[in-house]
Amino acid sequence: MPHGVAHQLIASHLVDGEMTPGEEIALRIDQTLTQDATGTLVMQELEALGLERVQTEVSVQYVDHNLLQADEKNAEDHAYLRSASRRFGLWYSQPGNGVSHPTHMQRFGAPGKTMIGSDSHTPACGSLGMLAIGVGGLEVAMAIAGQPLSIRMPEVWGVELTGELPPWCSAKDVILEMLRRHGTKGGTNRIIEYHGPGLAGLTAMDRHVIANMGAELGATTTVFPADDEVRRFLTGEGREDDYTELLAEDGAEYDVTEHIELSELEPLIAQPGSPADVVPVREVAGTPVGQVVIGSSANPGLRDFAIAARMVDGRQTHPGVSFDINPTSRPILADLTRWGGTTSLIAAGARLHQSGCLGCIGMGQAPAPGTNSLRTMPRNFPGRSGGGKDDRVWLCSPETAAASALRGEITDPRTLADELGLTWGDLDLPEPTVIPDMIEEPPPVEDAQQEELVKGPNISGLPELDPFPDAFEVPVLLAVGDDISTDDISPAGAEALPFRSNIPALARFAFTRIDPDYPANAEEIRETGHAIVGGANYGQGSSREHAAICPRYLGLRVVVAESFARIHWQNLANFGILALEFTGEKDRDAVPQGSTLSFSGLHDQLTGGDEVVGTVDGTEFTFRHRLSERQVRMVLDGGLIRQLAEQT
Amino acid sequence: MPHGVAHQLIASHLVDGEMTPGEEIALRIDQTLTQDATGTLVMQELEALGLERVQTEVSVQYVDHNLLQADEKNAEDHAYLRSASRRFGLWYSQPGNGVSHPTHMQRFGAPGKTMIGSDSHTPACGSLGMLAIGVGGLEVAMAIAGQPLSIRMPEVWGVELTGELPPWCSAKDVILEMLRRHGTKGGTNRIIEYHGPGLAGLTAMDRHVIANMGAELGATTTVFPADDEVRRFLTGEGREDDYTELLAEDGAEYDVTEHIELSELEPLIAQPGSPADVVPVREVAGTPVGQVVIGSSANPGLRDFAIAARMVDGRQTHPGVSFDINPTSRPILADLTRWGGTTSLIAAGARLHQSGCLGCIGMGQAPAPGTNSLRTMPRNFPGRSGGGKDDRVWLCSPETAAASALRGEITDPRTLADELGLTWGDLDLPEPTVIPDMIEEPPPVEDAQQEELVKGPNISGLPELDPFPDAFEVPVLLAVGDDISTDDISPAGAEALPFRSNIPALARFAFTRIDPDYPANAEEIRETGHAIVGGANYGQGSSREHAAICPRYLGLRVVVAESFARIHWQNLANFGILALEFTGEKDRDAVPQGSTLSFSGLHDQLTGGDEVVGTVDGTEFTFRHRLSERQVRMVLDGGLIRQLAEQT
Repeated sequence: MPHGVAHQLIASHLVDGEMTPGEEIALRIDQTLTQDATGTLVMQELEALGLERVQTEVSVQYVDHNLLQADEKNAEDHAYLRSASRRFGLWYSQPGNGVSHPTHMQRFGAPGKTMIGSDSHTPACGSLGMLAIGVGGLEVAMAIAGQPLSIRMPEVWGVELTGELPPWCSAKDVILEMLRRHGTKGGTNRIIEYHGPGLAGLTAMDRHVIANMGAELGATTTVFPADDEVRRFLTGEGREDDYTELLAEDGAEYDVTEHIELSELEPLIAQPGSPADVVPVREVAGTPVGQVVIGSSANPGLRDFAIAARMVDGRQTHPGVSFDINPTSRPILADLTRWGGTTSLIAAGARLHQSGCLGCIGMGQAPAPGTNSLRTMPRNFPGRSGGGKDDRVWLCSPETAAASALRGEITDPRTLADELGLTWGDLDLPEPTVIPDMIEEPPPVEDAQQEELVKGPNISGLPELDPFPDAFEVPVLLAVGDDISTDDISPAGAEALPFRSNIPALARFAFTRIDPDYPANAEEIRETGHAIVGGANYGQGSSREHAAICPRYLGLRVVVAESFARIHWQNLANFGILALEFTGEKDRDAVPQGSTLSFSGLHDQLTGGDEVVGTVDGTEFTFRHRLSERQVRMVLDGGLIRQLAEQT
Repeated sequence: MPHGVAHQLIASHLVDGEMTPGEEIALRIDQTLTQDATGTLVMQELEALGLERVQTEVSVQYVDHNLLQADEKNAEDHAYLRSASRRFGLWYSQPGNGVSHPTHMQRFGAPGKTMIGSDSHTPACGSLGMLAIGVGGLEVAMAIAGQPLSIRMPEVWGVELTGELPPWCSAKDVILEMLRRHGTKGGTNRIIEYHGPGLAGLTAMDRHVIANMGAELGATTTVFPADDEVRRFLTGEGREDDYTELLAEDGAEYDVTEHIELSELEPLIAQPGSPADVVPVREVAGTPVGQVVIGSSANPGLRDFAIAARMVDGRQTHPGVSFDINPTSRPILADLTRWGGTTSLIAAGARLHQSGCLGCIGMGQAPAPGTNSLRTMPRNFPGRSGGGKDDRVWLCSPETAAASALRGEITDPRTLADELGLTWGDLDLPEPTVIPDMIEEPPPVEDAQQEELVKGPNISGLPELDPFPDAFEVPVLLAVGDDISTDDISPAGAEALPFRSNIPALARFAFTRIDPDYPANAEEIRETGHAIVGGANYGQGSSREHAAICPRYLGLRVVVAESFARIHWQNLANFGILALEFTGEKDRDAVPQGSTLSFSGLHDQLTGGDEVVGTVDGTEFTFRHRLSERQVRMVLDGGLIRQLAEQT
């Protein structure tokens, strides 16, 4: 059978297993990416593993998430990350240098490579014909130490693109269309592979937009071929030598297929609350807007800022709108400036922020209660903006964002173009200037060994975990609904994120958006332990393993849910928490908050099959687990770190 | 006697009193300035006063202090400030438009005018031949309502400048020399008036640097003549019509005199902890540096950024340094960009932030513990940076800052220039482009009356205060040392500042840097009330009246200190707190923390003279007050707002 790009990437890195959907496979990993919100734990894990030197081809530590430095903890983290990067041999991208995904793509991305990253938007590098997967931090640490990545072989979902995008539509509208069609669970256990003649009209950075937000579909990753557009991109970055063609074989077949005729798209927007609640912009036009934010890894390219600059050039944004510009990186800001776009944006009223994730992760730029905020970002889970759980964040293209900033209300860019006589066409952008990096190369190994880790008072060690008990009885402390995100479990935002290197302190924020008393209640019965019951897609969103470690630190033993999001499910196993599913006959209503779960003979049950029998308030109840033997072992040993420590 | 500029300004606005140092005078106020950290209270005061329409020539509300929007409260404040500006008839400068002082100077400043502002750096507009004074918010509210400002006539301190600054020295070194000579109390009850042939080499924006940091000397204000440099400045801003010459009369005499020969200066730096702990840069050269911040109202001019850009152009800042650039305003950033400086800074590794006060007021950019942070800002009180009270913040010129950013250690710019062969000379800066403002003109009065105030849940009303009791007995809850700043009393920073519109919430931060239990202890005996004992220069620094209102809300009745900083002293009276001084025989050691202060017959005592007799732990003790009759009345009535309410 002719292979698509995804199959070729997997086949060339397969070190164990069979490429049958659902089977566990192990892949050799060429590159890793970590950012500051998850990276401090990865560095602590490398310490715990006793690593001498990075074993990958390239590992890069970025600092892009928390750049506010609202107190001393943040700069303390930066010093720790820099020293650990130097010690272990990672490249270190300084605070304010740029958002990890596009920066990695520009500086290190290469067709044919595999990469994992402790950030759920890692798949963005799939735009270059890489297999790039978001995972928990511990798996990144293991890859840095030279271990392969184990995952279940996903299905491959071939999405054929035909035609050309109409004026005032761009790549963001393509991925919003996918979300409109399939929702946040549509991509679960799938790799999305785009192909077809429509690709010719999408630059590598446009493809980045689509690959990035594939994470919102729940996909394992997204891949594009490495074709002439990729060659053009790498040539522009001064790295033509890193180009290798990687195309789907003629007649490649896919497990699932899909077709999008690009010319039929129109400007789309995700309504507050979910990236998948997508409607045409025209249907919500006229809604008042108080904030517009352009930037983030979901619209990072020079053209994304340039189109906004062109649209507002010589005009003024509405006085009731805060027009926030988050440049992607120093190089892209330098290019935008050289092209003249920075001046256009400033003159139109922009607040030009430092390069980084900022408001996307709730680090600043929080909207006022009830204020509609239009963003080109990838996510709008309630509260993620920092504006409280009733925030009103919409997701759209830069074209829709800029049009709405000018008008002070949601505006279809086609309407604005008609009114103002704007023309759609080539922006005549310059080739990238490669300005000097603020990415430090690691010192040679002999110097690295002399490097001391700089650990301020806010940097804790990892908590020590005990092995999994063979029998236990625990209360259900929380029962939650569908689509609980890792933002709900372990919030980011300006209050909590500064404690990302300090598990005991961060644990005090766990689940507080849902139940402010959860940390205290859990702490009180930490010795006994507790259970959590969830709905479908439990643990969606950000890859942060804090969402496993913090509840584990507070005594979480078992999560029972209808289904789990992939990364969080693996994170639970990594830290010795049992993830069980309902079998279908009964659901979460049968295990309400306050009920008692009891299990015995767990060792035999888990190794003996995929059914686990326990009791709920004394009545027998059958659950299912989907763990591989490897994962069962990991849970029983009390998590991966303890397992490795026991082995040495 | 021939008059200097200060006397002419006062004489032309005098509505009551005699111009004898120490006598209370009343001045007509032409302009007011408020910023967001103090402005939300001013707007609440305008509401309490029932104001219909601004009575000044120009009143402007800026939003520059808290721009982080770490949660929804911040944007809520912005919406309130905008609606109140429109309702009462103030101009509204949007968040991110620019820092108030230089923006006001560029857009509204005019020779011969008086201005008060609820910000201690308001004197910066003295650079244009204005009389610009920092005061408490309530006095700004009164001025907006058309009332004159009452102050005690200061002495005038004539500082003659001769010669020319040597290469690699700039205006910042002039004011650092003043601080080196005279300390933080040297300017108390004085207006500093610069004159002499050395002025010819200082542009209006250079003079802004000097006038701005006159606040650090404790001066009432600083004035410069309106001469050809001022005309040139206003012409550049497209406002030549606003120019009026205002020069010292020949042979003008001053109460105190001083001389600085500019050619004898060298690069200076204030060491951590106080703006007055000044030493030559060469004496501390080689100290490692982890952060450099360029910007703030103390080095706001295009040339300040341009010289740094020129120095780092084509070079890389040290990888261990966070090189933070805080542009002053959108227009200045636009000009810097047009000139090419923005690109130079970004390429050298800069983190380019939005226009505003940011790290100067501890809103972001906090350094790590023990990390030396060099800043071109005006203040380095311990903890003000947000980096904890053991932060290490140094104050210096942009030249010293840029040199140190390149080297990663404190570096005399002359040494760097020698090493790199840098030449000192004309930067060939462009004339300002006047890009469109983000300053909204208030609507006409008939529309303004329809404007509704937008008040989110975090905007409280002002607390109701009771009249001053004739007799009371209270414990001394806190006894503190010299130079207690309003930052110590009511901290700004990312944790507290978001509550600036909510006195009950903000009061929970009062004095917590000194005694974390103060708010709870005070709250517990709120009905009884309490006293605070201080040393010299009590209440220095920021003008924020929160430092009076919050302790008052918690029950503070009386502060006994060796001396008071002017603005805070007036704020205490404004909110019905009695400010007493030691008479000299005994000092604060005689009134320790935990002792009991008792007074009776206060009405008669305060109106009868400047001595106040009470008891300390039962023993008779004589204090002094310096309040005018007007101020005594205000205190006895329970503060100015209650007084006005009683009168209507």
